[in-house]
Amino acid sequence: MSKTIILKQRPDGKPKTSDFEIIKEGLPSIETGEILLKAKYVSVDPYLRGRMRNEKSYIEPFKINEPIASTVVAEVVESKNDKFSDGDFLTGMLDWKEYQVHTGENLRKINGDNISLSAYLGVLGLTGLTAYFGLKKIGEPKEGETLLVSGAAGAVGSIVGQIGKIKGLRVIGIAGSDEKVTLLKEQLGFDAAINYNTTDDMAAAIKKHAPDGIDVYFDNVGSYTLDAAMENINRFGRVINCGAISLYNETDRPTGPRLETTLVKKSVKMQGFIVRNFEKDFPEGIQQLSTWLKEGKLKHEETIVEGFETIPQAFINLFDGKNKGKMLVKIY
Amino acid sequence: MSKTIILKQRPDGKPKTSDFEIIKEGLPSIETGEILLKAKYVSVDPYLRGRMRNEKSYIEPFKINEPIASTVVAEVVESKNDKFSDGDFLTGMLDWKEYQVHTGENLRKINGDNISLSAYLGVLGLTGLTAYFGLKKIGEPKEGETLLVSGAAGAVGSIVGQIGKIKGLRVIGIAGSDEKVTLLKEQLGFDAAINYNTTDDMAAAIKKHAPDGIDVYFDNVGSYTLDAAMENINRFGRVINCGAISLYNETDRPTGPRLETTLVKKSVKMQGFIVRNFEKDFPEGIQQLSTWLKEGKLKHEETIVEGFETIPQAFINLFDGKNKGKMLVKIY
Repeated sequence: MSKTIILKQRPDGKPKTSDFEIIKEGLPSIETGEILLKAKYVSVDPYLRGRMRNEKSYIEPFKINEPIASTVVAEVVESKNDKFSDGDFLTGMLDWKEYQVHTGENLRKINGDNISLSAYLGVLGLTGLTAYFGLKKIGEPKEGETLLVSGAAGAVGSIVGQIGKIKGLRVIGIAGSDEKVTLLKEQLGFDAAINYNTTDDMAAAIKKHAPDGIDVYFDNVGSYTLDAAMENINRFGRVINCGAISLYNETDRPTGPRLETTLVKKSVKMQGFIVRNFEKDFPEGIQQLSTWLKEGKLKHEETIVEGFETIPQAFINLFDGKNKGKMLVKIY
Repeated sequence: MSKTIILKQRPDGKPKTSDFEIIKEGLPSIETGEILLKAKYVSVDPYLRGRMRNEKSYIEPFKINEPIASTVVAEVVESKNDKFSDGDFLTGMLDWKEYQVHTGENLRKINGDNISLSAYLGVLGLTGLTAYFGLKKIGEPKEGETLLVSGAAGAVGSIVGQIGKIKGLRVIGIAGSDEKVTLLKEQLGFDAAINYNTTDDMAAAIKKHAPDGIDVYFDNVGSYTLDAAMENINRFGRVINCGAISLYNETDRPTGPRLETTLVKKSVKMQGFIVRNFEKDFPEGIQQLSTWLKEGKLKHEETIVEGFETIPQAFINLFDGKNKGKMLVKIY
């Protein structure tokens, strides 16, 4: 038997486990040219919430009663394709299925190389590439500048801050618990960190840690945190709009202070992106991230939960900030 | 005698003539190295409203009881400086004074060249350069794309739209009267134009004229118009935040729909600027604008009012959209 997780209904506000259903099917068989994959690690990511809405976006919405998909590390357990052998590990966009049939197209072979398999969903996967290219291409960071990161203890944010330190910036993180603040400062080398859950005036807290203002703001959360960052943004500041997790479950259209006057007055850039925009440069990014990882310059934070059936809850937990670093589900 | 216009008090909301005062002084005398200038054309610009606030910005605020300054074309009426002769025309940042003493530093000699003096405050001045560099450097326009311009019949907007046409874009303008809409379509070559004062649903009106969406939005006004543009923005769209005239007189902090989710989903860039950011490229811009002007590719819209004492009212009229093209005051 093999389990599959389908989208039962579109979430209204914050997703619930009842929005998903786990169905059981017989083990599929493969034809010539195909491979049978067994999921080993499944990535859960905030952006998947967007695909659960019935809205036109850069990627097709998930369909009701069809499987969810995300990036997965899987093992080839049977192959009728010359390019793949039993025991190969592959990564790419795959369905939330214990076992699935595939042609191997658009999947990348990963050969370990003394790097743990889970890293290919985190620092060496789309997560790491998101941090690397967002900061580099949009943030244009310069040594000596001040970088603010929200969602700083999350999958992307924890890598952004560490790259900021490698590049010689002063790095301030925003996270949701004292434990995360300690992680950022003591394990990941951030210069300062703010717990937004115990801070009344975020703009003042940022100002305290960055009296000369913020040059680069890597935003994973949007909303009030973005507003507070904008109050501290410097002339020629760059805002990298990577995500807006605080808004993903909103059902009404959120409002806030208008930012256009600040953009004009301070010659500020705000730019959104998805990592696929930089696809042609992925090999360079993976090369650089692998080097930093092997040199020990980049730490690899993960929150791993276990068991295929926990995937929906692991996804939901992202919105309560229950992860430190990359949230993954390990499948046995 | 010589008149000077000083800032009597900081405007609260929309400026009134009583916020200014006209004072009379004796004609100044000059020392060695100095020149005596007589104002010929004075530029009134929306951005001056920002300098009337007591707020830190990219430029010092005006001081109470001191003269306002803007870009001016002036004639040398007496010179004790070898570099300048009686009858030279100069342009640069000068006080709102009929006569003033200057060293000539930071002023540019303009020699006519079959171009009217007033053009040096408009298409060949900071106005034209704002249009040229904002569109080129931030908008990155590509042939065949769709460009939306707000404040399209204004000083900057009317040039932006014409450059858009020169570059092979489809150009849609937003302006505040049917007369301006006609000007845009019939005189300035815009493909379509919308009168926002007679349009209930701006987003729908934009969509009607740009069914395939907006690639570049040159924003001079901010607020609701920006929101409507953002509803029509395409993936990889570029928003040039040049001004926000609709917000300059606001006394409360304006709010509106949050835009960060659109920025992320559609990989959109919003970037503010002031023209001085591109100062090192000004010679190239002036060269290109002069060429287009001489070739007749760029029309030179002006609203010229007359008399030194009308300067405050001409400035105030900007906020009621009473100008077509560049608003200037001609001094006798």
